Amino acid sequence: MKQIKIAKNSGFCFGVKRAIKLAEEAAQSYKSAFTLGPIIHNPQMVDHLNSKGIFEIDNIDQLDDRPVIIRSHGVPLYELDIINNKNIPIIDATCPYVSKAFEYARKAGEEGYEIFILGNPDHPEIIALKSYIKGDFFIINDNLESLPETRFAKAAIICQTTQNSQNLEQLVNALLPKVNELRVFNTICNATNIRQNATIELAKKSDVLIVIGGKNSSNTKMLATLSSAYTKTYHIETAEEICSQWFENTPFIGLTAGASTPDWIIIDVYNKIIEIVGNNSNFAKCVEEIPGYKEESYEF
Amino acid sequence: MKQIKIAKNSGFCFGVKRAIKLAEEAAQSYKSAFTLGPIIHNPQMVDHLNSKGIFEIDNIDQLDDRPVIIRSHGVPLYELDIINNKNIPIIDATCPYVSKAFEYARKAGEEGYEIFILGNPDHPEIIALKSYIKGDFFIINDNLESLPETRFAKAAIICQTTQNSQNLEQLVNALLPKVNELRVFNTICNATNIRQNATIELAKKSDVLIVIGGKNSSNTKMLATLSSAYTKTYHIETAEEICSQWFENTPFIGLTAGASTPDWIIIDVYNKIIEIVGNNSNFAKCVEEIPGYKEESYEF
Repeated sequence: MKQIKIAKNSGFCFGVKRAIKLAEEAAQSYKSAFTLGPIIHNPQMVDHLNSKGIFEIDNIDQLDDRPVIIRSHGVPLYELDIINNKNIPIIDATCPYVSKAFEYARKAGEEGYEIFILGNPDHPEIIALKSYIKGDFFIINDNLESLPETRFAKAAIICQTTQNSQNLEQLVNALLPKVNELRVFNTICNATNIRQNATIELAKKSDVLIVIGGKNSSNTKMLATLSSAYTKTYHIETAEEICSQWFENTPFIGLTAGASTPDWIIIDVYNKIIEIVGNNSNFAKCVEEIPGYKEESYEF
Repeated sequence: MKQIKIAKNSGFCFGVKRAIKLAEEAAQSYKSAFTLGPIIHNPQMVDHLNSKGIFEIDNIDQLDDRPVIIRSHGVPLYELDIINNKNIPIIDATCPYVSKAFEYARKAGEEGYEIFILGNPDHPEIIALKSYIKGDFFIINDNLESLPETRFAKAAIICQTTQNSQNLEQLVNALLPKVNELRVFNTICNATNIRQNATIELAKKSDVLIVIGGKNSSNTKMLATLSSAYTKTYHIETAEEICSQWFENTPFIGLTAGASTPDWIIIDVYNKIIEIVGNNSNFAKCVEEIPGYKEESYEF
């Protein structure tokens, strides 16, 4: 007997759903539009939108008179200024939680805080976020030991929305003894928190855990990192990457998916695993139950 | 061979030294003055000042036309208002670090933060501090489990100046997942931090550790609590409380003293221990070396 379980809150979050909806509306209204960088970090979804006339460009110089969609991670202020001057329709699909973090960054800079950004310096959300900061800042990713030795009167922390709360706790604890005032903007998205915790709990019970989502997706990679501390973990983008050997001697199989992973890919993976592990008589029932991703067991 | 070591930063801190100096100046200028409650939490020092004409009262109704000294822990705003209306000289011996915490409390209240005070609700510093807060607040002492279940948009933490940084870390970590913004005013006095850390390090090496200071002194009691996690610990106010049995089979003896413990009491205790543990040929040298409380070893 094998069991397969999908972690709670797997798949699209609010911000991604909203961005995709705005892109699909733009495709209908304008026939064709650009996104600056991938609208979300999922190549399959980007390809899908591409087929509807939504094209990814990586440089604002490539814009013409077609509308531009600001992707879920936002864009730097200096790019926004240029776009605003171009007299083209702008569809802002920046996740509202990401915009909130940008606002905190602006505010903390204006109020003279020494700013510590917890996030990946190469991620578009952080590249955009830092453009909102007046003054200096430090970016802390996994380099806690590189914190400056000096004491600060006022320091502020702002987090990448897909960061992990244990990393935030570590940074806070490291900074606390060095400051008179520490202002923590806990901009880690609550859906991220719930998904990460559900994935950790599922990983503890699983003999193997499959993480589904873009290889370029920060939040998906974080799920794989967290899970691999507890069980054998594979990060895949699509069902095609699955190896049947992964499921030998694994009575309990866990599945989780990042915030930018579309339902159809999760269902594909689920389907493929059932095909491998055996009796799929409950298949129809299972697929029907996937949307909403309740943490329920399916037995085969 | 026995070794005796005094923890770094034992004894008077800046705020206590300043309060005593102001009280002694008042004794000279005015011959007699009142303090509202003990000026510092050390009964022996209070007795000493009493002999110079500085009298402790516990109620503002007992004031006459003599000057009043505001003690190092401060007084509540409503008492300060009454005193200000009495037309008598006021000598403000509130520790400047405590005043800073009061200011943060006022500011956090005005800016609409949900306030968490980390401290002892019965301590005069906290009784005074809470009078500066506009709005509601929670006092957290060792009751972390009583934190409210609700989420907060904005929360602020303010600490009793003699609190322990591990307790602050615990409170911060417990609140972080519940808030969008957490503003930590780390008002734990730096001298407190250094003294606590030095005491912990010394306790780890000692076979017995003697904590010297007022039984009513928060910071002294905290030293005893911290030390007792590592070694047999006795909290005494004066040399008279020492038992010779405490030093049987204790090759390494540690001493520490609270921020409100006068030098003469530390020297008395030191003297008494040397008398008990044996050869005191180095006594003169040792006493000479006590002021400054460098962490050095003395061998007998």
